[in-house]
Amino acid sequence: MPSFRHLKSVIRLNELAEDPIDLSEDGCLTPKRIEGMIAEACGLKLFYGTERVSDNTLGALFDLAEEMQASQKMEAMQAGEVVNYIEGFESEKRPALHTSMRDFFEQQNTSPIAKEATHLAYRELEKLRAFLSEIESKDQFTDLVQIGIGGSELGPKAIYVALQAFHKPHRHVHFLSNVDPDDGAEIFKKVNLEKTLVVVVSKSGSTLETLTNEQFAQEFFRKAGLDPKNHFVAVTGKDSPMDDPKRYLASFYIWDYIGGRYSATSMVGGVTLAFALGMDRFLDFLRGASAMDKVALRKDPKLNLPLLSALLGIWNRDFLGLPTVAIIPYSQALARFPAHLQQLDMESNGKRIDKRGHVVDFDTGPIIWGEPGTNGQHSFYQSIHQGTTVVALEFIGFISSQYKEDVVYEGTTCQEKLLANLFAQSIALSCGQKNDNPNKFFPGNRPNRILLGERLDPYTMGAILAYYEHKVAFQGFIWNINSFDQEGVQLGKKLALKIVEQFAAKRQGKPIDPKGFPLGLAFLKQF
Amino acid sequence: MPSFRHLKSVIRLNELAEDPIDLSEDGCLTPKRIEGMIAEACGLKLFYGTERVSDNTLGALFDLAEEMQASQKMEAMQAGEVVNYIEGFESEKRPALHTSMRDFFEQQNTSPIAKEATHLAYRELEKLRAFLSEIESKDQFTDLVQIGIGGSELGPKAIYVALQAFHKPHRHVHFLSNVDPDDGAEIFKKVNLEKTLVVVVSKSGSTLETLTNEQFAQEFFRKAGLDPKNHFVAVTGKDSPMDDPKRYLASFYIWDYIGGRYSATSMVGGVTLAFALGMDRFLDFLRGASAMDKVALRKDPKLNLPLLSALLGIWNRDFLGLPTVAIIPYSQALARFPAHLQQLDMESNGKRIDKRGHVVDFDTGPIIWGEPGTNGQHSFYQSIHQGTTVVALEFIGFISSQYKEDVVYEGTTCQEKLLANLFAQSIALSCGQKNDNPNKFFPGNRPNRILLGERLDPYTMGAILAYYEHKVAFQGFIWNINSFDQEGVQLGKKLALKIVEQFAAKRQGKPIDPKGFPLGLAFLKQF
Repeated sequence: MPSFRHLKSVIRLNELAEDPIDLSEDGCLTPKRIEGMIAEACGLKLFYGTERVSDNTLGALFDLAEEMQASQKMEAMQAGEVVNYIEGFESEKRPALHTSMRDFFEQQNTSPIAKEATHLAYRELEKLRAFLSEIESKDQFTDLVQIGIGGSELGPKAIYVALQAFHKPHRHVHFLSNVDPDDGAEIFKKVNLEKTLVVVVSKSGSTLETLTNEQFAQEFFRKAGLDPKNHFVAVTGKDSPMDDPKRYLASFYIWDYIGGRYSATSMVGGVTLAFALGMDRFLDFLRGASAMDKVALRKDPKLNLPLLSALLGIWNRDFLGLPTVAIIPYSQALARFPAHLQQLDMESNGKRIDKRGHVVDFDTGPIIWGEPGTNGQHSFYQSIHQGTTVVALEFIGFISSQYKEDVVYEGTTCQEKLLANLFAQSIALSCGQKNDNPNKFFPGNRPNRILLGERLDPYTMGAILAYYEHKVAFQGFIWNINSFDQEGVQLGKKLALKIVEQFAAKRQGKPIDPKGFPLGLAFLKQF
Repeated sequence: MPSFRHLKSVIRLNELAEDPIDLSEDGCLTPKRIEGMIAEACGLKLFYGTERVSDNTLGALFDLAEEMQASQKMEAMQAGEVVNYIEGFESEKRPALHTSMRDFFEQQNTSPIAKEATHLAYRELEKLRAFLSEIESKDQFTDLVQIGIGGSELGPKAIYVALQAFHKPHRHVHFLSNVDPDDGAEIFKKVNLEKTLVVVVSKSGSTLETLTNEQFAQEFFRKAGLDPKNHFVAVTGKDSPMDDPKRYLASFYIWDYIGGRYSATSMVGGVTLAFALGMDRFLDFLRGASAMDKVALRKDPKLNLPLLSALLGIWNRDFLGLPTVAIIPYSQALARFPAHLQQLDMESNGKRIDKRGHVVDFDTGPIIWGEPGTNGQHSFYQSIHQGTTVVALEFIGFISSQYKEDVVYEGTTCQEKLLANLFAQSIALSCGQKNDNPNKFFPGNRPNRILLGERLDPYTMGAILAYYEHKVAFQGFIWNINSFDQEGVQLGKKLALKIVEQFAAKRQGKPIDPKGFPLGLAFLKQF
């Protein structure tokens, strides 16, 4: 297969990128265009008329998906083929079977590997159901502290926060991730330890921050005269150093084919989310994710929302040259969702080599950032409207609120004002505004799209989560990079251990070997 | 004065940018370099040996500051000269006197305008002291809800969260900003309204989100049989529509020379922070900010931390071409600080025209984003180490923790592990790593700097806040853009009002005029 730059569709897209449509031109963005460019699935509508694409661009992007066999690779991933590898070099060589963690509903995957993974996942789900019903019958716990970092925090926390309106009453979850001791101190000073369950999550069972925080937490329990064994639950890989049921009240398993950033629907998110939401709503969440998994298998890219979104992203990134994507939910409940997507996207696709081990000569995953609207309008929107670096935007919104508590003020509800702002921003960024005062001139032509749902409930949250998981995976398939490893995090860890040794020597009053790691010492000498 | 591109120093910097130093080359980053490139003030050390600058680069950057009269402009700003203007066009034509909001300590500014502003600010501070001591004597309030958006939320909230370890016991603050009704419902469902004070903050007294949320909040009080007048406090501009003491328990003033994003040390942050911290600690916070204001007046850029940092940022942005800056605090307490800096920087410097009204032909303010470390290491660090878009990094760290609760695990404390990771990342990003496995190859040469403090206490928080305020202002001075207005937020607001009208018509069952704003209608028709 030719490299990315030499694909026929890429050559065509480069030609098209010399003169793409300009959304700010009179007559470019019309009601007809907006209404004609909507894709729909799982109760979600994707409006993409405000992207800088013509029918020709879309055609070439669909050819690109075809040339790179995007659909076949998605099928292969969901069937459990090994997708996490680099040819000819040492690599993880694993499938990525997060879709099997929720394939409990209609149209189940028939591949034996995927079925086996689903079977194992369902066993953990049944264990969880029994465990939760037991602690519930004893009314044992009101608070839960999830100790985990990266995917063991970001996805579960984003979803926990998003679905607060659906929580069981009197259940509170806290997340402890940072090795910063102030993070844990904040939490354990305020919870009632007797009624607190601690869920320690580490697939490898060896994550430094998580093991340190487990110790930190245990200290608080011991000081309060409580036995951690009656409060601590493990979520870990079978046979990891943490797989020691004697030390825990319960243990739940994950597998090496579940990457941290793809693990929210496994037990990594499951224990905590089912504790907070109850099992039925947790299953609704899984149902939404699973429904979107099936959408990702649709052959027609106009009906396959994650694939369509992936292609629009590649157009913006590689052909319009936009370095960042801002994800702006017009929903305060999704306040932490951009932080999850930051990991999902940047850890998956922030890569410099392709799956053949060649250094790429095109841009891979962009910088992902974002905060909720309307808040962002009073913060960084100055720059996205008039700054010198154009930002690609992905808006998320909902027709109804979660709590349905609202007031009518000056003729409209809060929810209506929220939506009015969302649509207005999409139009303003596209069309801009001519003005003789250069400070009131808006260039416009700034590409954006809107994902609009009915209401942010558990099912919809699951569908949105999976939409982004598959968008990211499709981009990796098309760039032919490995979206499932993270070698780029290793060097920092390795050097940190050298400096930790220097701190340990200092703490014991031993001299620090100046030849050991002189660059680390240069910092340590400063205090 | 010649335009930016034609400045002598800029021509020289462009030459230097053709072959800047490569931090990943053997022998480039040495202990001597790290130790020799440290600037210090207010108990903070700025390590910049891991930036891609040589003595020549620094010399040319200092010439740039000189050519653009950066120091004189800082003096003029602090003296109350009109700095917020665009020549020849309608503009706000105001001073920017946030430094006067805290000039209560040594070496006070002697300019009459600044002195008058300080005098007025002090009067509000005294009013606040009396108000807080009265509500305290009656033990009236345990909870405070600050209603405000943009600068009326982001700065105060970031600082409130940062200083939780220093709060008075049993005082809780909640922030309500988003017009999303779920944001307010979350808060008012859980607080004890009888013991809750609501602080409504809007300089103009006409911010749509804030007035709507004020109504939303009042509904909850009325339903609970409570009179809002006994619970609501206003922070607003004198003579704004909100300046109506009859409606409020108390009113505090701000002035048109205080921009929202520069208002955290005025009453916009003051009421809430002094409620949470007590007056003495709030004054420590102001003292730290004021001390950094004086540092920003130092003539020698090597001793002037905000100016030095501004220049390094301009080097990365305009000469190395880096589109984004990630602010990564190795401190969980600073979790919301990047969101404040996003507004501060992007709303100030995300501009496309200079102060003469000319469209710029160089890059202004970058995209600002960030999350705390070590968390980020398990999220987006893959991309910052091995992604195709190089990110400029600004780390923040502290030698001691806030709570001083810690455990020794495997020979070191959590705090030591946190610092070890911080220093290791700075070195890893600079030096990279050669490897025959292309997936384990790290290109390095990724510029970064570290701001290191002793401990994140109120004084240090104030100093760090002002350090960033002045860094941003210096960049604006050097680019000759107006860092104090935000015309770029107007268009979205204007279009939102048109769609709000359409919603209002729909709500009243009236037909929506299809010719009124057809693009808005195209969205509204979808549900």
